[in-house]
Amino acid sequence: MRIHVHNMIDGHLDPVTPSDWPEGALAEHVVTFGSDIESFRRAASEIEVLLVSSLVLRDLLPLDAPRLRIISCMSAGLDMLAPYSWLPAEISLLNNSGVHSAKAGEYALMAVLMLANGMPEIAANQSRKTWRQISVGQIAGKRLTIIGLGAIGQECARVAKRNGMIVTGIRRSAGIHPDCEAVLSVAGLAQVLPTTDYVLMTLPLTPETRGMLDESMLARLPAHAAVINIGRGQTIDETALCALLNAGRLGGAVLDVFENEPLQPSSPLWQTRNLIVTPHMSSDDPASHNLRTVEILLDNLAAYVAGLPLPNAFDVVAGTRIATP
Amino acid sequence: MRIHVHNMIDGHLDPVTPSDWPEGALAEHVVTFGSDIESFRRAASEIEVLLVSSLVLRDLLPLDAPRLRIISCMSAGLDMLAPYSWLPAEISLLNNSGVHSAKAGEYALMAVLMLANGMPEIAANQSRKTWRQISVGQIAGKRLTIIGLGAIGQECARVAKRNGMIVTGIRRSAGIHPDCEAVLSVAGLAQVLPTTDYVLMTLPLTPETRGMLDESMLARLPAHAAVINIGRGQTIDETALCALLNAGRLGGAVLDVFENEPLQPSSPLWQTRNLIVTPHMSSDDPASHNLRTVEILLDNLAAYVAGLPLPNAFDVVAGTRIATP
Repeated sequence: MRIHVHNMIDGHLDPVTPSDWPEGALAEHVVTFGSDIESFRRAASEIEVLLVSSLVLRDLLPLDAPRLRIISCMSAGLDMLAPYSWLPAEISLLNNSGVHSAKAGEYALMAVLMLANGMPEIAANQSRKTWRQISVGQIAGKRLTIIGLGAIGQECARVAKRNGMIVTGIRRSAGIHPDCEAVLSVAGLAQVLPTTDYVLMTLPLTPETRGMLDESMLARLPAHAAVINIGRGQTIDETALCALLNAGRLGGAVLDVFENEPLQPSSPLWQTRNLIVTPHMSSDDPASHNLRTVEILLDNLAAYVAGLPLPNAFDVVAGTRIATP
Repeated sequence: MRIHVHNMIDGHLDPVTPSDWPEGALAEHVVTFGSDIESFRRAASEIEVLLVSSLVLRDLLPLDAPRLRIISCMSAGLDMLAPYSWLPAEISLLNNSGVHSAKAGEYALMAVLMLANGMPEIAANQSRKTWRQISVGQIAGKRLTIIGLGAIGQECARVAKRNGMIVTGIRRSAGIHPDCEAVLSVAGLAQVLPTTDYVLMTLPLTPETRGMLDESMLARLPAHAAVINIGRGQTIDETALCALLNAGRLGGAVLDVFENEPLQPSSPLWQTRNLIVTPHMSSDDPASHNLRTVEILLDNLAAYVAGLPLPNAFDVVAGTRIATP
């Protein structure tokens, strides 16, 4: 097929280059690469497939690409592209869900361990050159509630269980999962929070998930509980979270995503008590990101050629991958 | 037997109390508790077993306790009691090796994950209210060299392997271990360092281990490598380590132990580049510490009564537990 790769300039990940492609794929398809709008315009009349950094896709609109059938975006969550009225009906939109799971699982494990070891307080003490021993516990045997059981949430469940935690999953509909003691629907969230030690948010941003961990839900957590968010900032009430942290009514938090990114210097979050801020880096491993992105695209192209459903097809109504469990 | 428990006042762990003992053990033995020297002196003429916080044992010397046969210390490393000339030949000295492993394994995993995720730099950025994305990788597939394969080092090997790392162990003599790709003697350390991604030190302080990771050994590590120490501060050349970190010739470090503790406000370590300082808290879980300490003591008393070797007998010449592999 005729494929164009449109990279972002100045991203924190390297651009996708021919070296990220298996030799066979480069022989089978015609692939061009660019990061400026002119190179896209030159290719536009011919291309059938566009692999694009999600953050710059809007720069290419309106799409004057009559043969285009597949847009594969280099993000798992595509909320930055909503509303999707720009998307012609004949084009399938794909995300790259599956690229981020292994890295995200390690980050989530780190976050839980840091909170269990009192690292927010210890980091603050280090900045004040203060030696103060504090009593900290273990994560083994503690209860983790994962809100969102997509590819990332499921990998986090696997990693947490492997390290001795008891996992409850929250997703659209209740069910079972091999790494979860229970899987509840969103309606069950309120009931599980009072016995939760750690909450891990891995949600995409959709109309249903916006503000899901709001003030009333946060208030149901015990005072020692801690919160981690690696999904989208808008799924938590940041203001309510910070108020609880500053009042000592929550144990701590690690946030990798925020309502407004990048976080501005004026944000009160930088200095919220027992809050660790990381710059939206939980889920990208530069060593594997581009290779896995190309692998996933090629898997989807093989399905397309065979007339099968595309594994990474994105549901623009629900705001999630169609195949997400 | 006649047992006296001598607690430390103002430690970061709770004192050992009757509630930490199984009911049967309190019925079988005569156990008294105290934290002042007078209560020890009152019990001294009768006691056969002393369970004592290692940091205050020296306050009780000289021991005028003619029936005393076992001193069980609440630490794994007993270097703070050397030289051991105060120890009468008829008394067996025990440590509480085995109490710390599970907690230490979690701390070591946290430290590796924090270093892999660039948390020293990210924490510094947070204190400057600076959002800067950095490229970070995964720990799965990376090489961890654990120096010291006692109870703690072995548990760290198990946890690291479970999370996808390739582990090399260093101990007094080469051999095999189920969680290590290789186990080398100390003579093999120089050879393994150039291919090491993470070094984890879990050594007790003995004449052999003092300064083991010295300037010449540190210089053999690749520039991206990182160092973690949860054993004893004197086993690393702190000055050389800090110089390499400040020069950007090592990737980072997490230190929980130091040549001089508590670390003074004047120490340059607090602000060394890419160095995270924690206050000697890697290995104590307050929820299990006292229960496990009593369990281990009772196991050793059972062995003593049966005329068997004591599992936690401490070798005052080697400076380690006799039964350490």
